[in-house]
Amino acid sequence: MIKPNKKQSTTDCSRRNFMLKSSLFMGSGAILLSSLKQQVIAAPKILEVPIWSKSIGNPVLHHSYGLPSNFEHQVIRRKSNPDDAPVEYVPSLDQASRSFTPLADLRGVITPNGLFFERYHGGYPNIDPQKHKLIIHGLVKRNLEITVERLKRYPSINKIYFLECSGNSYSNWGENEGSSVQGIHGLVSCAQWTGVPLSLLFREAGIDLDKAKYVIAEGADAPSMARSIAITRALDDVFVAYAQNGEALRAEQGYPLRLIVPGCEGSINIKWLRRLEVTDTPLFSRNETSKYTDLLGNDMARNASLIMEAKSVIIAPSGGQILPEKGFYEIRGFAWSGRGSITAVDVSTDGGKNWQRANISSDIFPKAITEFTFPWQFTGEKAILISRAIDETGYVQPYTQQLLKSRGHNYGYHNNSMQAWEIETNGRVQNVII
Amino acid sequence: MIKPNKKQSTTDCSRRNFMLKSSLFMGSGAILLSSLKQQVIAAPKILEVPIWSKSIGNPVLHHSYGLPSNFEHQVIRRKSNPDDAPVEYVPSLDQASRSFTPLADLRGVITPNGLFFERYHGGYPNIDPQKHKLIIHGLVKRNLEITVERLKRYPSINKIYFLECSGNSYSNWGENEGSSVQGIHGLVSCAQWTGVPLSLLFREAGIDLDKAKYVIAEGADAPSMARSIAITRALDDVFVAYAQNGEALRAEQGYPLRLIVPGCEGSINIKWLRRLEVTDTPLFSRNETSKYTDLLGNDMARNASLIMEAKSVIIAPSGGQILPEKGFYEIRGFAWSGRGSITAVDVSTDGGKNWQRANISSDIFPKAITEFTFPWQFTGEKAILISRAIDETGYVQPYTQQLLKSRGHNYGYHNNSMQAWEIETNGRVQNVII
Repeated sequence: MIKPNKKQSTTDCSRRNFMLKSSLFMGSGAILLSSLKQQVIAAPKILEVPIWSKSIGNPVLHHSYGLPSNFEHQVIRRKSNPDDAPVEYVPSLDQASRSFTPLADLRGVITPNGLFFERYHGGYPNIDPQKHKLIIHGLVKRNLEITVERLKRYPSINKIYFLECSGNSYSNWGENEGSSVQGIHGLVSCAQWTGVPLSLLFREAGIDLDKAKYVIAEGADAPSMARSIAITRALDDVFVAYAQNGEALRAEQGYPLRLIVPGCEGSINIKWLRRLEVTDTPLFSRNETSKYTDLLGNDMARNASLIMEAKSVIIAPSGGQILPEKGFYEIRGFAWSGRGSITAVDVSTDGGKNWQRANISSDIFPKAITEFTFPWQFTGEKAILISRAIDETGYVQPYTQQLLKSRGHNYGYHNNSMQAWEIETNGRVQNVII
Repeated sequence: MIKPNKKQSTTDCSRRNFMLKSSLFMGSGAILLSSLKQQVIAAPKILEVPIWSKSIGNPVLHHSYGLPSNFEHQVIRRKSNPDDAPVEYVPSLDQASRSFTPLADLRGVITPNGLFFERYHGGYPNIDPQKHKLIIHGLVKRNLEITVERLKRYPSINKIYFLECSGNSYSNWGENEGSSVQGIHGLVSCAQWTGVPLSLLFREAGIDLDKAKYVIAEGADAPSMARSIAITRALDDVFVAYAQNGEALRAEQGYPLRLIVPGCEGSINIKWLRRLEVTDTPLFSRNETSKYTDLLGNDMARNASLIMEAKSVIIAPSGGQILPEKGFYEIRGFAWSGRGSITAVDVSTDGGKNWQRANISSDIFPKAITEFTFPWQFTGEKAILISRAIDETGYVQPYTQQLLKSRGHNYGYHNNSMQAWEIETNGRVQNVII
């Protein structure tokens, strides 16, 4: 029941500014919020008092390290499978595996550490930081053995960067239809990393700049995961990280030390970093030749395709969800680019016929996840929602067909093509390959 | 043993740029990193292989919601006491209590959710979001009852803001000498908050701008914590948050909904938000009169002193720590201001005789924690380290004596005075009041 109040005059400047500000905030289009069908109630004489307001709650330090509310128990990492069901892990299989970030449940730039995606080739070790060392050797004047404690004393930097597995969205070439945005695209996360630049560490070691061409980074995991990095890239913005989102790295993300190679595929961001060898030749390790190399259609391979190109995905509405009713929905999504900042995101609600510029709803950091939003009315008619990212180089996120045409059908990694979600008349949201 | 390499030529441009870049990176002064006394070793013929590199590690989804490494078990929230010892909570006392963030162990802008400080007056409730409602009523056209699910459908914003209890650093007036930076200053944290602006919600409700002067915000905790907010502030940048650092609010921080009043003292950022009443008069609630009002020396009180003024604190070296040796240390700290951005931080290493500009080592966001660093050599001589923050208004963080002089000695809240740490010749770090 609407309770009428005195009619608002429109001559007051502050009031006009307020109204203006609200409509500007609404972004493109004039979507009436009343279409959200708010529950309008009578003036409450006595507000209902729930049970939790009538009793003393939990004390401080109920958890000395806090945990999510038990009501958020569905917001977890998962394995990817079409039914999107949590799978009991099979030890012999799951150390060479991956778990996916629940993108649809996240907001903004930061992925909380407990939901950061996992990817291992031999499981993750539980390293004692007091026994771990970082060795720097090779084409240097001084071979160094650096303890974790001492590494943390070096001048450090804080940077917000995404990490994405080069195999992210692998299932979306059309062969395996994943169902949820978590299941298809969940091998991407974003955090604030703290660490020491390689340029500083190599200055300490006295790098031989006449000869140095590559750095071999090796991890302390069972497979001794190793990758080569060109020395120019290494000296530019690569650093040894020891913290994520303000606290120590998680064991799953490389505790106590990992490499961060901004904008480049996940596997080169070596976890459990134990060794940096300065060399004059790349390593041609297994994990940059037989794996993580892109096969083209013509018996050729595109190797060292390191950079994760501009990409976006709508996280809501997304696969597996059901829109409860017609009305207003704020389409939301994430965009990122390994080449720098996202400059724009376009959204189509009709399968790509028409495109409109979305709103950027978070801070924009180069090589970090950026959130976008777009106001939309679900009218009960079928719709296909797509987003496309544009980065600072002018690069535009491509259609799947465009990628397949230019790279051939054996191509597997670096699937940064657009994601389309089909909304059926009953509100069900499904993955469609376009 | 140093392994000599061919002498580096200095004529190469890229090499010169590299050297230049490193010295620029070093900031003020020319601190030799060799003073870090790195362990220089012979070229490793065979690197020692630790036990964790020889066996398969943990599988994916060992934790579907990840947790810190067990080696980080000391990085937790604590109660404040001079010995800084973890205290077993006493249920009857600890619901009206606080727990402190381990600032010395953090880096950068983001406080991870599990370490966010706690402050309750009646414990924290465990609210079922499907049963929780936000009521908007009072001087509005339409009284609204909004479910959590529906609130989350509204256009939302993401903002990085600090929260600080107005009683933070209370122990540092000189009466109770806390020991660690956690114990003294740990009632401050910073996160990315996601939520819906009040300006939008009040537009939905149809606020009566002729009459509306205040908003009463009330929580669903046992004490029904309530505060008043001026309507101009409410319509400016106040919002109803449902996420912190990308995931749902933690129960300790107000799950499922809380108010964020940027830059203003913690208690006004009402947790477990259940009601917003638009009124023409403030509430004069207990928690803005008998509590959270600053007593001055002259039988007067300074009420509604909402804004947390510019403040900084060195987190390392900090109280309770012992520097292990002479040599290079990067002094690190946090600065923040409720009035906007931190524009500069100065550091003194001689008790305030001389000051130098520190390096800002994180992104700068208005009303968020900003990290600063300063290169320093511990020579074995006594030193007193102090930092002072300067914000965009030109305000400079004051000495304790300045605050006491202007506000009197009954003053308790809003202690934003400078923090001094004394380094003894044996490396021990102690709190000193200056």
